[in-house]
Amino acid sequence: MDTRADNQVRPPARADAAAELGWLAIDAENCPVRRTLDVVGEKWSLLILRDAVNGVRRFDDFRRHVGMSDAVLSDRLRKLTASGLLETRPYREPGARSRLEYRVTAKGWELWPVLLALKQFGDRHHGDPAGLMLEIRHTDCGAPVHVTVACADGHTHLTHRDVTVRPGPAARPLADPEH
Amino acid sequence: MDTRADNQVRPPARADAAAELGWLAIDAENCPVRRTLDVVGEKWSLLILRDAVNGVRRFDDFRRHVGMSDAVLSDRLRKLTASGLLETRPYREPGARSRLEYRVTAKGWELWPVLLALKQFGDRHHGDPAGLMLEIRHTDCGAPVHVTVACADGHTHLTHRDVTVRPGPAARPLADPEH
Repeated sequence: MDTRADNQVRPPARADAAAELGWLAIDAENCPVRRTLDVVGEKWSLLILRDAVNGVRRFDDFRRHVGMSDAVLSDRLRKLTASGLLETRPYREPGARSRLEYRVTAKGWELWPVLLALKQFGDRHHGDPAGLMLEIRHTDCGAPVHVTVACADGHTHLTHRDVTVRPGPAARPLADPEH
Repeated sequence: MDTRADNQVRPPARADAAAELGWLAIDAENCPVRRTLDVVGEKWSLLILRDAVNGVRRFDDFRRHVGMSDAVLSDRLRKLTASGLLETRPYREPGARSRLEYRVTAKGWELWPVLLALKQFGDRHHGDPAGLMLEIRHTDCGAPVHVTVACADGHTHLTHRDVTVRPGPAARPLADPEH
């Protein structure tokens, strides 16, 4: 059986309705990105980024909404900031001391396609029976948005069967292959 | 400073030349996917998938090429197989006992855009000075391939500034928000 035949990257299904909840009011338990990362990898850093691209900025909000310990959150925020994916800005609430909030940098936004691709997979394979948890639409035309593979000459919806992979100039031989 | 202004998803740069090395002959140390996952998450599962989509099938080849312990590799292969991302098939070399090899399923191929998006980010931000380690081109036209965000009505190269995110029908309120 050749399992490559069904590799078309499909757009997510349309959702029928959208309740107007703020992001912080939504239970993230059934988030498809989270479920996908439960399968394919350590998840905290990408879940923090997921929240950050959805507008979460403050430590306590990350902690509560993502659902993680102070220690792990502090560690991951430090690494994300050191990597230039998040940047800090001071803020001060009336009567309180100055604190830091976290914002996605231009470099951090470049991981948006990774998050969307994880969401797309999660929507298809770990979705909620009720439909999408978040729907993302093109603001101008209202059509649902998806991640696709395209080439520089404008051909879209490419699958792995449409491409040729070759070593580039940075490909070097293994120094000490075992055989 | 609004850091959202520079969020264009750009195609990777063209590489000038490509040495004809097989995948197993290449040192994966400078793989941009690996470097990206060193920053944003636990990496072994996606690195196994990276190798699998590049044609690696056998336990010893994964172990040697990805560079991981038997125990971690066994655990991750078991999880990837149980999740339906890889499937096993028996093979037997002359004079040896039957063993299992691992192949990417149709479901597993649906994570290809995740791997490409990680590669795209890594190529831009953790690339080798020599250029690309792997170049991926559209076979029909030869143009380099990239991951892009598009809508169902055919508008491409969308950024996060072009979309509207709304809760879908599976968005439920947090059961017990702390305030």
